[in-house]
Amino acid sequence: MAKSESREVYRPVTPEVAAEARGLIADADHAVLGSAEAGTGWPMASRVSLATFADGTPIILISGLAAHRAAIEAEPRCALLVGSVPGKGDPMAYPRVMLYCRARGLDPDTPEAAEARRRVLARNPKAALYVDLPDFRFFRLEVERASYNGGFGRGYRLRREDLVGAD
Amino acid sequence: MAKSESREVYRPVTPEVAAEARGLIADADHAVLGSAEAGTGWPMASRVSLATFADGTPIILISGLAAHRAAIEAEPRCALLVGSVPGKGDPMAYPRVMLYCRARGLDPDTPEAAEARRRVLARNPKAALYVDLPDFRFFRLEVERASYNGGFGRGYRLRREDLVGAD
Repeated sequence: MAKSESREVYRPVTPEVAAEARGLIADADHAVLGSAEAGTGWPMASRVSLATFADGTPIILISGLAAHRAAIEAEPRCALLVGSVPGKGDPMAYPRVMLYCRARGLDPDTPEAAEARRRVLARNPKAALYVDLPDFRFFRLEVERASYNGGFGRGYRLRREDLVGAD
Repeated sequence: MAKSESREVYRPVTPEVAAEARGLIADADHAVLGSAEAGTGWPMASRVSLATFADGTPIILISGLAAHRAAIEAEPRCALLVGSVPGKGDPMAYPRVMLYCRARGLDPDTPEAAEARRRVLARNPKAALYVDLPDFRFFRLEVERASYNGGFGRGYRLRREDLVGAD
């Protein structure tokens, strides 16, 4: 058996698995952004608040002062890890999905930014404290592919179309 | 005021702040690893189980099948985000610390690997299911610097010596 075959641990994606992953994203009000530090390229991992457009595309809202803001403006390739550890026991047993994305900042005073604002506030009302501060900006995270881990030994590779599509 | 000054939002680090950050790391049994995908350099963010050596240096245990294993073996620079969202309200209000690290794999059958195994099992007993599987490996994450976010507007830059030192 070739090495690449022996290391193939991904299972076939069923509609149920894709629905599980979409459900995690639909239910989450925060996530962890993986980015590359501006200037150094050092990997970073930082918490972001999360909402989605109607088609499932993630929306994040970031201060101009945050290190990950400079990161994704310099290198739009990023990742988003969605899924929490809500209880006791092995934290690796709880499902999570990692989205490989490209970030695109929304211009203020556009219909798309207004829709992002509405959706961010609907999912996270406390964001009202800072959503309109002038240095905050919405970003769309265009999903290119993803990996879903449903718990130990349950790994799946997902395509964009498993997660993003008509509402 | 120069732009660099106007964007300076970090507060002075007090012993209490460093202790808060060390406490987060001491209490966590999982974290999110930021890494760079092998081959592409695409930023990734993935859940890992967490323990620490006596001096506070993080220990993670990773399967040879995980994408982040190949990532940190190709690019040892990585990040570790520690801190959970334990309740309701604004998820951005809960503290977290991001460690900028270099990963170093531990050779099996060394005293250091035995100590890592003991500490991983002490913090996460469920890891007994896979800790001895042959493709799993312990990594030390050597902390170079960190940023601590104690909640909205409470940002601090930490040095290695704020987090790692004599036990």
